Amino acid sequence: MPSVALLERVSELRILRDQLRLMIWFHCSRIARRYPHQVSKEVAKGTNAGRIKFADKHLSMFPQDLTYGYYNLHKKHGERSRPLDWAIVEATAINSEGHIVPGASVGATPEILQPAAKIIIEVNTRIPNLEGLHDINQSFVPPHLQPYLIPHPSDRIGSTAIPVDPDRVVAIIETHKPDNTGSNAPENDESRAIARHLIKFLEMEVEEGRLPKSLLPLQSGIGNVANSIIGGLAEGPFDNVQVWTEVLQDTFLRFFDSGKLDFATATSIKLSPDGFDHFYKHWTKYKDRLLLRSQQVANSPEIIRRMGIIAMNTPLEVDIYGHANLTNALGSRMLNGLGGSADFLRNAKISIMHTPSTRPSKNGPTGISCIVPFASHVDQTEHDLDVVVTEQGLADIRGLSPRERAKVIIEMCASGL
Amino acid sequence: MPSVALLERVSELRILRDQLRLMIWFHCSRIARRYPHQVSKEVAKGTNAGRIKFADKHLSMFPQDLTYGYYNLHKKHGERSRPLDWAIVEATAINSEGHIVPGASVGATPEILQPAAKIIIEVNTRIPNLEGLHDINQSFVPPHLQPYLIPHPSDRIGSTAIPVDPDRVVAIIETHKPDNTGSNAPENDESRAIARHLIKFLEMEVEEGRLPKSLLPLQSGIGNVANSIIGGLAEGPFDNVQVWTEVLQDTFLRFFDSGKLDFATATSIKLSPDGFDHFYKHWTKYKDRLLLRSQQVANSPEIIRRMGIIAMNTPLEVDIYGHANLTNALGSRMLNGLGGSADFLRNAKISIMHTPSTRPSKNGPTGISCIVPFASHVDQTEHDLDVVVTEQGLADIRGLSPRERAKVIIEMCASGL
Repeated sequence: MPSVALLERVSELRILRDQLRLMIWFHCSRIARRYPHQVSKEVAKGTNAGRIKFADKHLSMFPQDLTYGYYNLHKKHGERSRPLDWAIVEATAINSEGHIVPGASVGATPEILQPAAKIIIEVNTRIPNLEGLHDINQSFVPPHLQPYLIPHPSDRIGSTAIPVDPDRVVAIIETHKPDNTGSNAPENDESRAIARHLIKFLEMEVEEGRLPKSLLPLQSGIGNVANSIIGGLAEGPFDNVQVWTEVLQDTFLRFFDSGKLDFATATSIKLSPDGFDHFYKHWTKYKDRLLLRSQQVANSPEIIRRMGIIAMNTPLEVDIYGHANLTNALGSRMLNGLGGSADFLRNAKISIMHTPSTRPSKNGPTGISCIVPFASHVDQTEHDLDVVVTEQGLADIRGLSPRERAKVIIEMCASGL
Repeated sequence: MPSVALLERVSELRILRDQLRLMIWFHCSRIARRYPHQVSKEVAKGTNAGRIKFADKHLSMFPQDLTYGYYNLHKKHGERSRPLDWAIVEATAINSEGHIVPGASVGATPEILQPAAKIIIEVNTRIPNLEGLHDINQSFVPPHLQPYLIPHPSDRIGSTAIPVDPDRVVAIIETHKPDNTGSNAPENDESRAIARHLIKFLEMEVEEGRLPKSLLPLQSGIGNVANSIIGGLAEGPFDNVQVWTEVLQDTFLRFFDSGKLDFATATSIKLSPDGFDHFYKHWTKYKDRLLLRSQQVANSPEIIRRMGIIAMNTPLEVDIYGHANLTNALGSRMLNGLGGSADFLRNAKISIMHTPSTRPSKNGPTGISCIVPFASHVDQTEHDLDVVVTEQGLADIRGLSPRERAKVIIEMCASGL
């Protein structure tokens, strides 16, 4: 049993973590390439200055493309046919089989471990052993892929930990530090107004028979509007709600505690420091209603379309024809990656973009319009969106031609300024 | 058995076809709305003039959105809760159960018949009874959707004909006219050069182990480049090839006859008049290696991604960052719909755009550049394309950042003019 070999080597592999940290920090400060997503100001700055080569890829596709060998086509160092030389992964435990139990995120970990030449495992002993929280399935390449037999958010198709080749593990380090997260973007009048419009819309969809009474599984992005929506649902009219999403934020804890959320599944949990403390303290309470999966599964078009997800995300700007820019301010200044937004918006039953009609800039509190005549960069096309909502109102553009969309988006969503 | 009732009513329902034709023609000349695709000059003209409200939707999503009720949200006539008042469908036979055997296309027929208040069936007796050529599955809505258990292009999940409610059939008309198709866009030096670059690229992918020897299932768009590629494959180095595509053109007959194509499946067959004559005369020869499915299945992201399709389509223009415009010349003059191109390009294992580097215009044979600095309309985003190829060469943009893509697309693909 090769995997148990890992357990036998733990003490040998446990090296001086501060020494390793320094080494890793040194390399991170000299990032040459970044895939497939970023929300860091430093990476954005490096990208815009041309120091960092950042390429934005749908989260569902990145792990596939990595195993396909698409990211080492031009590799000139190390083993050229290997997608990765080094992988650093987080664990909350190494189980009795020598498999890795992840932390609050699965992401692309299985596909990153698969081809990496050398693996460093960071075991976080501050976090409880989260074994049972994850569903880890093996990742195949065509023509050997099979259907994901997941008709319901709580369905499992894998095991609770990630297998790893012990011969490639070069170090196990221990840490006791918390996840480096900030506090939540605070709700405000605008975000609450958007949430009200949206919940009213969902009520109408139920009333007219286009959605079941307990809705269909929800995907919700991050940010204060998302917080207001999920907060609104925690006090809202829908019971037995299901969530199939990418990232869970603090308000989901409130949603769980309200008794209205039956089950939630995602690829990661990103809570505030207080939120994480609360979650880890009470995690057995959430455990049976929560599941983390790899991003290839969580963001899978196959499953999103099958479940008829209701997808809700925030753009930088939406144009009056229904194109949305999520990544590049004024067309070329990279702010953040598109993440899994397009996985969800392309495939959802109802694809919703929510944004304040304006955002503050140097020129004042309503300096930049988020409803624009023509998106300066297009991440979601006019063929992908069903609903645009701002604090002004909600534009239902389903079935409308581009000219009709323009009229209703301006009427319902644009700021009156 | 309600369906057999249809057979008993055939003579009653068989009405004077010329009378009906006149009526239908009258209504068609006054089209108010058009979904989800168009390739007609008249519809484009009407759309650009504002007479026709055309909205372009991914072919995989249109049938779903129709059954969801998204196209009758604003309906003010007939039964308002019914997506369709009238449906006109083609058949090559009505089988012994009273079900409809389609012709050379399935498309959205099952989902169009499902909600229509009144149904007219046009039986084309010029075409042989094509029973056995189709795989018709029932279409459900969430939360009742199940995985498509189709790991291989030849897998069947349905029956050979479309069930229909006989009480809603108001007329059966007979026709003996052929499909109204034109001849193929002729191959030329450019299209053959593109095909050569592409086949060389596929050979390299096989050599480096990123594709199996018999490739992965191919999707090919329409037009002369597509014809050259499929023609090139018919004489090419790959055996036991599979095709999973949207539309089959004349060159696929050549591909079949070459012995190199094992199996092809699509949602429709669009041949030249001569091609159709040949196909219908010899259709039993092709029958066991060919299957037509509904467009919801043929264009399903679930299956396209699972199979690792190699997708090849033609844009109007591609920009140097990898955005493509397939629909609107100069950003706003509608030429044709995007069809299923985005279903395939978003989900394929290798997403390829092929185009001549220039096209003729009023200003001369190379009047318009197809490789542009900035796409004037975006139907496929920079996050979706892997390869751009023109007669000049092939740009492999996998894993590249936007700035790197610009360099390689200009170098490899742009016209030297």
